[in-house]
Amino acid sequence: MGKIMKQITCQETRTISERIIFDGDLNDKGTLFGGKTLSLLDENAGLASFKLVKAKIATANYDHVNFWKPITTDKYIKFESFVTGVSGRQIEVFTKIISHDLKTDVTEIAFTSFCTLVVLQKVDLPRLVPETVEEKYLCAGFAKRLAARQEDYNNKEDFLSRLSLD
Amino acid sequence: MGKIMKQITCQETRTISERIIFDGDLNDKGTLFGGKTLSLLDENAGLASFKLVKAKIATANYDHVNFWKPITTDKYIKFESFVTGVSGRQIEVFTKIISHDLKTDVTEIAFTSFCTLVVLQKVDLPRLVPETVEEKYLCAGFAKRLAARQEDYNNKEDFLSRLSLD
Amino acid sequence: MGKIMKQITCQETRTISERIIFDGDLNDKGTLFGGKTLSLLDENAGLASFKLVKAKIATANYDHVNFWKPITTDKYIKFESFVTGVSGRQIEVFTKIISHDLKTDVTEIAFTSFCTLVVLQKVDLPRLVPETVEEKYLCAGFAKRLAARQEDYNNKEDFLSRLSLD
Amino acid sequence: MGKIMKQITCQETRTISERIIFDGDLNDKGTLFGGKTLSLLDENAGLASFKLVKAKIATANYDHVNFWKPITTDKYIKFESFVTGVSGRQIEVFTKIISHDLKTDVTEIAFTSFCTLVVLQKVDLPRLVPETVEEKYLCAGFAKRLAARQEDYNNKEDFLSRLSLD
Amino acid sequence: MGKIMKQITCQETRTISERIIFDGDLNDKGTLFGGKTLSLLDENAGLASFKLVKAKIATANYDHVNFWKPITTDKYIKFESFVTGVSGRQIEVFTKIISHDLKTDVTEIAFTSFCTLVVLQKVDLPRLVPETVEEKYLCAGFAKRLAARQEDYNNKEDFLSRLSLD
Amino acid sequence: MGKIMKQITCQETRTISERIIFDGDLNDKGTLFGGKTLSLLDENAGLASFKLVKAKIATANYDHVNFWKPITTDKYIKFESFVTGVSGRQIEVFTKIISHDLKTDVTEIAFTSFCTLVVLQKVDLPRLVPETVEEKYLCAGFAKRLAARQEDYNNKEDFLSRLSLD
Repeated sequence: MGKIMKQITCQETRTISERIIFDGDLNDKGTLFGGKTLSLLDENAGLASFKLVKAKIATANYDHVNFWKPITTDKYIKFESFVTGVSGRQIEVFTKIISHDLKTDVTEIAFTSFCTLVVLQKVDLPRLVPETVEEKYLCAGFAKRLAARQEDYNNKEDFLSRLSLD
Repeated sequence: MGKIMKQITCQETRTISERIIFDGDLNDKGTLFGGKTLSLLDENAGLASFKLVKAKIATANYDHVNFWKPITTDKYIKFESFVTGVSGRQIEVFTKIISHDLKTDVTEIAFTSFCTLVVLQKVDLPRLVPETVEEKYLCAGFAKRLAARQEDYNNKEDFLSRLSLD
Repeated sequence: MGKIMKQITCQETRTISERIIFDGDLNDKGTLFGGKTLSLLDENAGLASFKLVKAKIATANYDHVNFWKPITTDKYIKFESFVTGVSGRQIEVFTKIISHDLKTDVTEIAFTSFCTLVVLQKVDLPRLVPETVEEKYLCAGFAKRLAARQEDYNNKEDFLSRLSLD
Repeated sequence: MGKIMKQITCQETRTISERIIFDGDLNDKGTLFGGKTLSLLDENAGLASFKLVKAKIATANYDHVNFWKPITTDKYIKFESFVTGVSGRQIEVFTKIISHDLKTDVTEIAFTSFCTLVVLQKVDLPRLVPETVEEKYLCAGFAKRLAARQEDYNNKEDFLSRLSLD
Repeated sequence: MGKIMKQITCQETRTISERIIFDGDLNDKGTLFGGKTLSLLDENAGLASFKLVKAKIATANYDHVNFWKPITTDKYIKFESFVTGVSGRQIEVFTKIISHDLKTDVTEIAFTSFCTLVVLQKVDLPRLVPETVEEKYLCAGFAKRLAARQEDYNNKEDFLSRLSLD
Repeated sequence: MGKIMKQITCQETRTISERIIFDGDLNDKGTLFGGKTLSLLDENAGLASFKLVKAKIATANYDHVNFWKPITTDKYIKFESFVTGVSGRQIEVFTKIISHDLKTDVTEIAFTSFCTLVVLQKVDLPRLVPETVEEKYLCAGFAKRLAARQEDYNNKEDFLSRLSLD
C-alpha cells in the first residue's frame, strides 16, 4: 500500500504585507521606485514558500512580472503571495499588489508576478489544493508556465555561452 | 524625402555597477538576498534606458529573470545593463551579473534578466545598433521575447478580472 | 431628527504585515533589534488609523508596549493592528506581533502595544463596532487606558517644566 | 559586616545623540516619521543601560511615550537618555528629545519616553544616585511607574490568553 | 567707530552623537564599515557648522581623515565635532571618534578628521573663540591646514584638466 | 638571481559604479547628501584595492577629498576608482565621480579623493604599471602625497595626546 501524500491548501501559504508609501521611496515620477517593489516582493514571496515546507529554499526565477498601475503616496498597498504550483523541487509563488486609494477608496491590481523557488535539499513536497476561483485559475496555468520556464533551463548552456564575461 | 532616423549603439547605453557583498545583505543561506539583487537590478537597468532617450520612463515588465549561481561574500559582482530592443514606446534592457571569486579569480554569469520600460511621452526613439557578437545575439531574440510579452498584455483584462481585490 | 452616525467595524481597520527576520536586523543577543520592531510597528499602526478616517493623522502616544518573547531568525512574524477606541480626535490602535517558529510550528504572542493617534483636522469619526471576543475585550479596556493617558496630558505642563533644555 | 554596594550617578549613564532631519525621513505631514524616532530612541536608551552594567540586556517595555511637538526639517534634535531607576534585574531609562529651531533658536521638549530593560543574567546592579533637580524629579517617580508596569506583568497571562493567535 | 563682530566659542558648536555598533554595519574583518563611519561623520560635522551660522552650507573638502583604531561591536563610539577655524566663507570642523570598550572600559581615539564647509550666501561669520587646551591646539593649526588646502584649490584647473571624462 | 616581481596595470584595478540620484538621498540644498557620497566612495575604493591583492585590507586614511560640483537629480554619476600607488603595505586608491547631466549631456568631474588602505597581513604587493596619461599623472604625484601623509603618522602620538578623551 502506497505512502499517503501530505496536502496543503493555497490558503495555508497565503502571506500578506500591507504598506504605506513613503516619500523617500518615490522616483522622479512620484511613483514607488521599482526596485523597492521588487525587494518587498521577494521577501513576501519567499515567506509563502516557507509556509509550504520546512527546508532551505532559494529564489531561482521570476517571470510575468508586470507593473500594471503606478503606485503613488495617495495609496496604500497590500502584497499578497501564495503558492500556485509544485513540481519536483520547484515551488511557484504568485504575488499581486492591490493598491487602495486613500481618497477615493478605489482598489485595483497594481502589480503581479510569478516566482520560482527551489528547495535545496531532498524533501517530499505536499500536494497543493486550490480552493477559490482565483486559486484554481492560477494553479490551472502552472503547467504551461512551467514548460515556458523549462525552455530557459534547457537553453541555459547555450544562452550563457553567448554572454561575455569581461 | 524621409526623415533621417537617429542611431545609437548598444555600447552607448551600457551601464556598469561593481559591488562588494556585505554581511548585512546575506540571507539565511549565506548568499545575497534576492530582494537586494532585484533592487540594484532595477536601478542599473533604468539608467541604461535613460542613456537611450531623454524622457520620463517607467518600468513595465520583467521576464526571464534567472538566478543562475548563488552570490556569496567571497565574490564581488558586476551589474552590466544595455538596451537590446526598441519598439514603439517600449525599451528592452538586458542585465547580467558577473560574479568574480576573490580567492580563485573564477568569473561566472550569476544572474540575467530582461526588463521592459515604457517612455511616458511621445518621442521618436533612436534606431539601436548592436556591434559585438553578444549584442547581436541578444538583439536577435528581441522580436520573439516581445511577442511573448505581448501575450501577457493581450490577456491583461481577462487575467486581472480573474484576481480577487479583497 | 438627529444625524445618523457612520459605523465601522474593528475588522475593517485590520492591517497585517508578515515579515521574515534578516540577519542584518539582529542585535548582539541574536534577536530582532527593538528599534526595528518599533519602526515597523509605527508603520502598521498608522495604516490601521488611515482605514478609519480620510484625514491627516499624527502619532501622539505609545503605552503598554511590551516585548513578551524574543524574536529570532527561526521565526517569521505577523504584525496585526486594528482600532480599539475612538474619542474626540483621538484614535487608539492595538498592535500584536504573532511569531511563528518555522521548525516547531509553535505560534505565540511576542509583542503587544497600544498607540494613540490624533486627527489633525476637524472631522466626525465613525462609531467603532467590535465583533470578535478579542475585539470586544480590547475595546472594553479603552476607557480605562484613555483615563490613564489623560493623566499624562493633564500633568504635561508640570512634567515638561521639570526637564532641562540644555 | 555587609557587602559595600557599588554606586553610579545618573550623569554617568547619560547618552547623547544629536541629529539633523533628512527629507527622506519625513512623512506626508512634513514631520519626522514616528518609526524613525522610535528606532533612534531604542538605540540611545539601550546605550544608557550599557553604561550602567556590563551584561546582556534586552528591551522589555516602553510607556509614557509622548510625541509632544512635531519635528520638522527646520530643526535639529538631541536625544538624551539616562537611567532613572533600578529594581531587581530591571533598569528604567528616560529619554527626551530636545528640538532646536535653526532659524529662531527656540528649543523645546519634542518627545519623552520611559523604557524598561531587563538584565539577562544574574548580576548585582549598582545603586543609582541622582544629582540634578531633573534627575531627582524623574527618579522620585520611579516607584509609581514600576508599580503601574507591574500591573501589566501581573495581568500578563490573562491578557495574552484573550488574544487570538490566528 | 567700527562694527562689533559677533563671537562664538568652539564649545557652542560642539555636536555629539553616541552610537552602538550593529552587526549589520560590520565588514568582513568584523570592524565598522568605513563608509558607515564616513556617512555618520558628515552628518555630525555638518550639524556643528549649522550651530555657527544660520545659512545654507555645503561640504567642500575633507582631509587628514585617519582611521587610527578598528571599531568593533565590543565598543560604543562617540562622535564629537566642533568648529576649529573660520576664514571668509569657509568653516573648518574637526571630528573625533572616541571608542569605549564595554568590557574593559578602555577609551581611545579611533578616528579623526577635518572637514571644510562653505557658506553658500554672503554672511558675516562670527569670530571663533577656543577655550580648552584641545580647542586652542586645534585652532592654532588652522592657518597651516588652510594653506595646504588652498594649494588644492589653486591647482584645481590644472588637476581637473588632467582627468579623463570618459 | 632575484625574485621576479608581479606586475599589475592601473587598468586592471579599475572599478566602476554608475548610479542614479534618488530624491531620498538629497539634502536641504537639493544636492546629493555628502555622507551618501562618502559611503559609496568607500565601497568603490575598497573594491579597487581588492583587485590588486587577495588579502585582508583596511581603510587607513582619506585626503584631498574635494566636492568640486554639486550633484543633483538631473544627473547620473559614475564612480571610477583605481590604484595609484603602492608602498610597503600601503595601497593608494584614487576615485573620481563624473556627473552626466541627463538634459544637457554635459559631463564634469564632480568629486575626487585619494584613499590609503593597509594590507593586514604580510604579502608581496605587485608593481603598479600606469598606462594612460591620466594614470601616469596621478601615479607621478604618489611620492609627494605619501610624504605628506607620513607627516600625519610621524606626528600621531603627539596629535592624539592633545585630544581629550572625555
